[in-house]
Amino acid sequence: MTAPLRVALLGCGTVGGAVLRLLDEQAADLAARIGRPVQVAGVAVRRPDRHPEVPADLLTTDAVGLVTRDDVDLVVEVIGGIEPARSLILAAVEAGKSVVSANKALLAEDGVALHAAAAKAGVDLYYEASVAGAIPLLRPLRESLAGDQIRRVVGIVNGTTNYILSRMAETGAGFSEALAEATELGYAEADPTADVDGFDAAAKAAILASLSFHTAVTAADVHREGISAVSATDVARAAEIGCTVKLLAICERVPGEEGDTVAVRVHPAMIPTSHPLAAVGGAFNAVFVEAEAAGQLMFYGQGAGGEPTASAVLGDLVAVARNRVAGAAGAGPTAYAELPARPIAETPTRYHVSLDVADVPGVLATVATAFAEHGVSIATVRQDGHGDAATLVIVTHSAPDAALSSTIAALREVPAVRGVTSVLRVEGLS
Amino acid sequence: MTAPLRVALLGCGTVGGAVLRLLDEQAADLAARIGRPVQVAGVAVRRPDRHPEVPADLLTTDAVGLVTRDDVDLVVEVIGGIEPARSLILAAVEAGKSVVSANKALLAEDGVALHAAAAKAGVDLYYEASVAGAIPLLRPLRESLAGDQIRRVVGIVNGTTNYILSRMAETGAGFSEALAEATELGYAEADPTADVDGFDAAAKAAILASLSFHTAVTAADVHREGISAVSATDVARAAEIGCTVKLLAICERVPGEEGDTVAVRVHPAMIPTSHPLAAVGGAFNAVFVEAEAAGQLMFYGQGAGGEPTASAVLGDLVAVARNRVAGAAGAGPTAYAELPARPIAETPTRYHVSLDVADVPGVLATVATAFAEHGVSIATVRQDGHGDAATLVIVTHSAPDAALSSTIAALREVPAVRGVTSVLRVEGLS
Repeated sequence: MTAPLRVALLGCGTVGGAVLRLLDEQAADLAARIGRPVQVAGVAVRRPDRHPEVPADLLTTDAVGLVTRDDVDLVVEVIGGIEPARSLILAAVEAGKSVVSANKALLAEDGVALHAAAAKAGVDLYYEASVAGAIPLLRPLRESLAGDQIRRVVGIVNGTTNYILSRMAETGAGFSEALAEATELGYAEADPTADVDGFDAAAKAAILASLSFHTAVTAADVHREGISAVSATDVARAAEIGCTVKLLAICERVPGEEGDTVAVRVHPAMIPTSHPLAAVGGAFNAVFVEAEAAGQLMFYGQGAGGEPTASAVLGDLVAVARNRVAGAAGAGPTAYAELPARPIAETPTRYHVSLDVADVPGVLATVATAFAEHGVSIATVRQDGHGDAATLVIVTHSAPDAALSSTIAALREVPAVRGVTSVLRVEGLS
Repeated sequence: MTAPLRVALLGCGTVGGAVLRLLDEQAADLAARIGRPVQVAGVAVRRPDRHPEVPADLLTTDAVGLVTRDDVDLVVEVIGGIEPARSLILAAVEAGKSVVSANKALLAEDGVALHAAAAKAGVDLYYEASVAGAIPLLRPLRESLAGDQIRRVVGIVNGTTNYILSRMAETGAGFSEALAEATELGYAEADPTADVDGFDAAAKAAILASLSFHTAVTAADVHREGISAVSATDVARAAEIGCTVKLLAICERVPGEEGDTVAVRVHPAMIPTSHPLAAVGGAFNAVFVEAEAAGQLMFYGQGAGGEPTASAVLGDLVAVARNRVAGAAGAGPTAYAELPARPIAETPTRYHVSLDVADVPGVLATVATAFAEHGVSIATVRQDGHGDAATLVIVTHSAPDAALSSTIAALREVPAVRGVTSVLRVEGLS
């Protein structure tokens, strides 16, 4: 056994702590799997006094100094956020260190520049832990399916919103009430914006789309709607039509006459309860992948948490360490396809719409006309009369999203329509 | 773009044909992803006249000549079976060619020697397609979970038996009848032995266990029971206790006082209908993985078929091609752990047992005593009287398999027991 590979750890929160513990517990196994032992060279934190569990001589507040030290071979970044993570990763890469990161926000914003820097320096930049925690997903997309054409990726990739939506379905609670419960139980952060407004899922969608379609997709390319507008009525309506509401990250390659485009979006949607994603509860994540030759694949597992995320970080660490031992960096992702992003307005979707209407003759005809005038075809309609009013529940066929939203706007102006009580996209219907 | 990488294809059946087609259709994408174009150098078949779809100048019957040709860089083996596949792979490896194989039987029998030859020659030997078709499984086990400790792998990895068992459950048919239907529909081969007797699943289990536990496990180490003894009664009894019968491949790391051992087995078992594996039907495969830090993961997709298998072959082909371009072979699997195989007799399992008994006072006590005398604890028992007879349905707690089978043997000798009508192991109960 030769000299150890030395690892710098940036950040020591829940994930960093788990990484340190596993590096220690699994030391013998890691050494055997890599061919060289792994040693922690230092741990950069903001407040060393808050980490009594880490040997004091390893702690430092000088993160830049640490990642550029000559005795450091590999860098693990689990700080999160854009800065200082970006500068530190760039400094590490330029100093010739391979980097493992769990940073979805940074990779989704600036993956292209970071990959370019890594390629230029001949080092690895791996980030399996950034999407869907422990679930092996980026490596399968990037490597196992590298000889196939991926068409579609649909996933539940945010545990907080999944918990909230599950609770709304179980208890009939509204969004605010379910969020309050999630916050109290620690499933939602004090500032839940990143989760409930879909920023977290959108960053993950950008990473998934980039790898799936060999195209640079950033978070800014992702159409993003959170779940704060999902009402108890939406959830109840979903149940009535045999569906459940989930926040989905959807990455699609849309064929077109002038070439394929890539449509990436995050929004709540109704999916049939028979759909495998419908049963994914709580902290679990699941991602469906549809490829030309492979057909349908599903990946399922824990999407968050210190241990599962650390498992993904260590998997990457073993990979970059093996590459270091072999003396060659692994192949980075490619972005040669350069498929243009398709705006949400032009992306084909399906809508569920519930309307309160006056129960007068001809109201269905009036409503149906509004759909037809926008080129939207209706798949199913159910009319429930009660007194002088009626409820219309409509599920459309697929149409450009803009046509669907114009239809809704038009319906709001129809005198016989007293209210649009629920509008949500529908996915996974045959 | 530099000179093309040249691929020799061994075998041109369903999978080989799909590989050729995808290599052609995806040529531009593959070139962009690898950094060099890929070209077919030759296709070795037994009967060139049977392959009018392949350009005649590519076809050859001289497989050894083809794999050792100087203008061949990579070899894809989709012949299957032990010989001549083994000799050809060894010849290719010794001639410095990296190899992609879909050959589960060969890898399960002789993986150690083949890996040693590949390591010695500094080339890659990849075989993702050998287990669970298109599902990325070996790469996740070997790489994504390389920093974790895998505890257990449980999978449905044979589509033929899964189809037969599903039909038995749906129609109440016996094994022979369901097999005849499967044969007629082309889901079972004319000689179904490899599938129904569990040889196919056992080979896959050996490969999964080897990678999961960093230990050389061969098909001979796998306890194997097929499904031909599964009766309509077994299937009906399973339904009565909320279970369904599946042929499972189970790889476990069993902790022990004198160190951990590895127990690998393939047998039919009852699993609760609520278990995610229970819903896996027809040609689909699914594999559960339980790891120390990652927790529970599931992989799901098409387990067989030309296109899905070809997708996995091409994923590996891109990987070995990238390694070739980078000038270094990837890390092979490790077998450093050398955990001893645990015999089935000592492996903890749970049993379901249905007995026809005389409905006389004390019969339950007599039966319960037989279990107790063998150290087997009963979890649940249900007694249904009818006339002068009764049915006892017993589910045990976990006990060494030998204790359970001795219990069954003893029960057969109990005068009050008129018949043991169903015995199957039970998995997935909490």
